[in-house]
Amino acid sequence: MDPTRLTVLTIKYLKEGKRSALQTILEELHPFDFAELYRALPEKHHYKFLTYLNPDQLADLIGELEPESQMEMLHKLGIEKSSKVMDIMDNDDLADMLGELSVERLEEYLASMKKEESNTVQQLMSYEPETAGGIMTNEFVWIRDHYTVRDAVEKFKSFAELTRNIYYLYVIDENKRLVGVVSYRDLLLADTNEQISDIMFNRVISVPVNMDQEEVAQIIQRYDFLACPVVDENNVLKGIVTVDDVIDVFIEEANEDIEKLSASGKDIDFNTKSYVAAYRRLPWLVLLLFIGLISGSILDGFEDTLNQVVALIFFMPMIAGMTGNTGTQSLAVVVRGLVTNDLDKKTVMKLVFREFNVGIIIGITCGILVFLIATVWQDPMLGFVVGISLFTTLIIGTLAGTVIPLTLYKLGVDPAVASGPLITTINDIFSLLIYFGIASALLFYLI
Amino acid sequence: MDPTRLTVLTIKYLKEGKRSALQTILEELHPFDFAELYRALPEKHHYKFLTYLNPDQLADLIGELEPESQMEMLHKLGIEKSSKVMDIMDNDDLADMLGELSVERLEEYLASMKKEESNTVQQLMSYEPETAGGIMTNEFVWIRDHYTVRDAVEKFKSFAELTRNIYYLYVIDENKRLVGVVSYRDLLLADTNEQISDIMFNRVISVPVNMDQEEVAQIIQRYDFLACPVVDENNVLKGIVTVDDVIDVFIEEANEDIEKLSASGKDIDFNTKSYVAAYRRLPWLVLLLFIGLISGSILDGFEDTLNQVVALIFFMPMIAGMTGNTGTQSLAVVVRGLVTNDLDKKTVMKLVFREFNVGIIIGITCGILVFLIATVWQDPMLGFVVGISLFTTLIIGTLAGTVIPLTLYKLGVDPAVASGPLITTINDIFSLLIYFGIASALLFYLI
Repeated sequence: MDPTRLTVLTIKYLKEGKRSALQTILEELHPFDFAELYRALPEKHHYKFLTYLNPDQLADLIGELEPESQMEMLHKLGIEKSSKVMDIMDNDDLADMLGELSVERLEEYLASMKKEESNTVQQLMSYEPETAGGIMTNEFVWIRDHYTVRDAVEKFKSFAELTRNIYYLYVIDENKRLVGVVSYRDLLLADTNEQISDIMFNRVISVPVNMDQEEVAQIIQRYDFLACPVVDENNVLKGIVTVDDVIDVFIEEANEDIEKLSASGKDIDFNTKSYVAAYRRLPWLVLLLFIGLISGSILDGFEDTLNQVVALIFFMPMIAGMTGNTGTQSLAVVVRGLVTNDLDKKTVMKLVFREFNVGIIIGITCGILVFLIATVWQDPMLGFVVGISLFTTLIIGTLAGTVIPLTLYKLGVDPAVASGPLITTINDIFSLLIYFGIASALLFYLI
Repeated sequence: MDPTRLTVLTIKYLKEGKRSALQTILEELHPFDFAELYRALPEKHHYKFLTYLNPDQLADLIGELEPESQMEMLHKLGIEKSSKVMDIMDNDDLADMLGELSVERLEEYLASMKKEESNTVQQLMSYEPETAGGIMTNEFVWIRDHYTVRDAVEKFKSFAELTRNIYYLYVIDENKRLVGVVSYRDLLLADTNEQISDIMFNRVISVPVNMDQEEVAQIIQRYDFLACPVVDENNVLKGIVTVDDVIDVFIEEANEDIEKLSASGKDIDFNTKSYVAAYRRLPWLVLLLFIGLISGSILDGFEDTLNQVVALIFFMPMIAGMTGNTGTQSLAVVVRGLVTNDLDKKTVMKLVFREFNVGIIIGITCGILVFLIATVWQDPMLGFVVGISLFTTLIIGTLAGTVIPLTLYKLGVDPAVASGPLITTINDIFSLLIYFGIASALLFYLI
């Protein structure tokens, strides 16, 4: 059914109070479609819609929503019904959602949930959000190495509800340490009397709870895993990270990289309200405004030169723009490379040297080109000044676009600081200083 | 074992001719680590290293390498050994690799491969690279709806080799049309005598062979699938796309978005040689150079105004920079939003209107700020001109950053055209025209 028709039909059934007719449609829907339908409904229908859903459906729905809509939904459901839904939700989604609540409301909800659910979710909430612990679920099935395949399948069947999104069984020893992994495929292929220790894969790759989520994602991507076990310092299994969460990490990290290049501010999407979007974008713009005025005040210092050779101004936008552009290009290469490369000293040296060479090649090409153009348009001496300036600023711009983000990354400074517009604006200043510096030095020949 | 030690040990064993010692280490490695080791080895050891590997290991290795290194490896292996390796490789990786070969060499390889392998891979190669057909594999196991669970497991066991990266069995009817799906988990949980048609999920979501890979990736991400079946126009199952390929699609698309924002040119990574990187970046830079000169020539037209109020120049870098920055921010929001949103007319109108409002809020804030600064630094009338200009250019810059990429996207023009630097440079021109236009109009009050 196409989404518009689905929405129209849902509103009709809601208005007519046809609960069972609505259920027939809803049973066909995946959680994502559920959430799409909810978003498409006018807000006045939300409450009634929610009352028509069973707790499983509510859990599916709330797990797909954005934090804001989750809060609204909890509010509409009331604390009693909410806590029933929370008992059913995936623990990792639940932990993320509860992390958005105020301390008082959080305690209220935790108190009204089942004891064991509230304990496991509180454990998950104790990890940093952007680490393996923060994105893992602690709903998984473990088996012992001395089990037979039959035992394992038995245990698996009795915990079937827990294993909806899980593709491996993890094998632990008597101290709960992770010693192996068995996939569903292995279980299907094996004879039921075989021992787990004989069919398990025992060189399990696991990640520590505090590993950065980006590294976890890299490991799962490199090895084409469906899930990766998370262990503490004693190799005790604490949870698992699944591939669907990893996709979300990659999307999140890509968005951060794009924020970095554009200084566009965090969390602006198509649905953000204008004043929120403006508020998030303004801090960068105000900072860049002041830096832009610094560029201007540099010109103030060169007023004499400018007054004597007004034509110098004609090439100013081009030189500043080009330096900014080449810096952004270099920054993009660094930002993109950091997604898949580890930064050791050798890599850094190689990269800086490479970009230096790129700067020289680009500088010579564009320098000569603009020398010829300026010579024809104005005169050879001005062409010489513009060409040499562009050559120099392109090399410096390329290096700035490489070295600044690498240095900040190494220092562990929030990489958003190395934003594209910031590098562009800094390169503006460099380029004006160099251009008018060279022009002033050669002023005698220009006039 | 850490990578450096692994490399050193491998070189040692290669030099001493200790093949079996080397094999002991290699058996521990995942394909990704295999490829990392190969890359870390100095090229002079590559040939000997390859002769020490068995065909399975060679297939794992070549599947992980970049096209350039794959070609080098095929050359080193020779046609006979290469075709043995190709018979073992995953069909989708093989199709990608063969797509890089010249027609003559391709025919040579296809002729020397097993008949059925060469047929299936040729079929895969007939699909467009960035579509569902282009990224799918046609190695999968189908079962019939009238099978029992026992039959299904039997068939699954006899095709075990094909199912390494597969997590579902697909159910087809007598016309090979896709009618259902069964996961390994379902098979484990079911009784062996149950019929497949009773346990299968029959509202299978499938994608057509010619669907864009980005859309396929979106579907798999939205529904948290591990794989998605690909069908032709008659709903006949042609292949499956697996989640690991989808992760690669997301990384690829993120890289394209970053290229878009930075005009950094395709396929530049940490290993690209400097002259190649410079060559790929230059076309954009040369284009931007010419546009930059147009900005300059605009100034030429305002020479009178400039000569009379030199202080106007001081605010030029700031105004041009700010207009460029706000445009880049808007562009980033659009580029990022396109990853997860479908663009219908309503969305477009809403977005353009939102950005217009953002432009007004940002314009008022920055305009007032700069009016105050310019009034203190120079005089109120200049402050007024600069403030009004900034207000206007920020609104136009924001709209340009939204409307230009949306229009190009709608027109189906290569989105790279809507690059960040291009929008910055175009906004440069707008902002200079407006600034000096307003200044010239009010020139009487300025002097």
